[in-house]
Amino acid sequence: MLVVKLGGTEGVDFDAIVQDVAALHRAGEKLVLVHGGSAEANALGEALGYPPRFVTSPSGFTSRYTDRRTLEIFLMAVRGKVNGLLVEQLQRAGINAVGLSGLDGRILQARRKGAIKIVENGKRKVLRGDYTGKITNVNVGLLRLLLHEGYMPVLAPLAVSEKGEALNVDADRAAAMVAAALGADTLILLTAAPGLLRAFPDESTLIRRMSAAELDQAMDYAKNRMKKKVLAAREALEGGVQRVIMADGRVAEPIRRALAGQGTTIQR
Amino acid sequence: MLVVKLGGTEGVDFDAIVQDVAALHRAGEKLVLVHGGSAEANALGEALGYPPRFVTSPSGFTSRYTDRRTLEIFLMAVRGKVNGLLVEQLQRAGINAVGLSGLDGRILQARRKGAIKIVENGKRKVLRGDYTGKITNVNVGLLRLLLHEGYMPVLAPLAVSEKGEALNVDADRAAAMVAAALGADTLILLTAAPGLLRAFPDESTLIRRMSAAELDQAMDYAKNRMKKKVLAAREALEGGVQRVIMADGRVAEPIRRALAGQGTTIQR
Repeated sequence: MLVVKLGGTEGVDFDAIVQDVAALHRAGEKLVLVHGGSAEANALGEALGYPPRFVTSPSGFTSRYTDRRTLEIFLMAVRGKVNGLLVEQLQRAGINAVGLSGLDGRILQARRKGAIKIVENGKRKVLRGDYTGKITNVNVGLLRLLLHEGYMPVLAPLAVSEKGEALNVDADRAAAMVAAALGADTLILLTAAPGLLRAFPDESTLIRRMSAAELDQAMDYAKNRMKKKVLAAREALEGGVQRVIMADGRVAEPIRRALAGQGTTIQR
Repeated sequence: MLVVKLGGTEGVDFDAIVQDVAALHRAGEKLVLVHGGSAEANALGEALGYPPRFVTSPSGFTSRYTDRRTLEIFLMAVRGKVNGLLVEQLQRAGINAVGLSGLDGRILQARRKGAIKIVENGKRKVLRGDYTGKITNVNVGLLRLLLHEGYMPVLAPLAVSEKGEALNVDADRAAAMVAAALGADTLILLTAAPGLLRAFPDESTLIRRMSAAELDQAMDYAKNRMKKKVLAAREALEGGVQRVIMADGRVAEPIRRALAGQGTTIQR
């Protein structure tokens, strides 16, 4: 069992990923795909005159402030378009994909943050009305049912709160939770870089292998989005996933390359 | 087994429908919902500077010309937003809804039209590059699987071509095909009118009961969107559905009222 997280439409080669997924699928591999879509959501927000607002937490993480209107834009861009086009491409490649978000069938249950702490111009503030969440539970029953019947689940990073509200969640961490809940052997996080770099952006400093114990240290040199991937890797490994591979999503056969040792492999 | 078709967000009372669906669900009724979303797609197209283009067929039906960009707008508005918000409302009401489009799991398989014949300024023309389709088959297996496990499928009117392309399909006729394929007893088509009117728009001319044989005649007085509902009703009845009810979606308890004899009931 393999869980693959890919980005939205930017920075990764959708076609190459789909061809690779199709080859693995024909070889009998069971796969679940989780995707992002921030770039599409940003572009749609801009086009609709409602650009995204990014906020920084006191611990230095950047995230999208998701008010109700932003959540609707996210539904359209990520659940509607990115997920839909990915399912279409898989269908064209002969794979019977089923696009779902974590809202559907309560696949991803999350705790709504509601109020988030941010740092703005050096000052701490609290922002209310946020529709983001932290995943607390995965409905593996529905995923297993689909996999058992030969469908390939394709998951958009939305979740459902205890009250039934739709929430925006981080796609890397969603993939980690899904991989752990399914008892997947491997989680592959595809990205627009060859893997984790010791001295970003120098690609010659790629780390080929590391242990779970070294992940704490990795937070020091992981830059930008890679910080969340490091967090996701830790959550997956703590959840029982055997290995996490951060690998290049811009190349041909990205998944098979990752499985063959390209990228950064983090062993449990 | 009951299939209910509701509109997009305009003209029907979403809240009332969801409350009604929840009550029926708690009473043990198995339901599948199919929705539209044209108004949302139109609004999104307008907002993005890409308004819809409506065309008229030689037999007088009006439909949306769906080029590739329009298909993406349709994915965003209908599969992303309308379907997503409906699933969210159902989840808030305690129903474990699963939003799907006909593209997912090949639930609705269709023949792509590709080129469509239209009449414009009195002249016949052929328009190419159209992504609409006519449904040829329903994957009831996936719907039954979900129903059996206690999920409520909520279907967006998209289908998949033999080549795996996403296609825009008519929601009323999609609901008819789904009802027939599932062997549903009843198909309810909710609309922004009390039912089928003999002299539109005079609501006092509501037809309460009619037989399937009278549907041909109904094509003469059905106006606008009601023509497609008449077609859908015929397809459902020919497919084995026991009765089709065209009923008001703007009132409280719209489904239970329809089942109790409000609206236009067409018996097989």
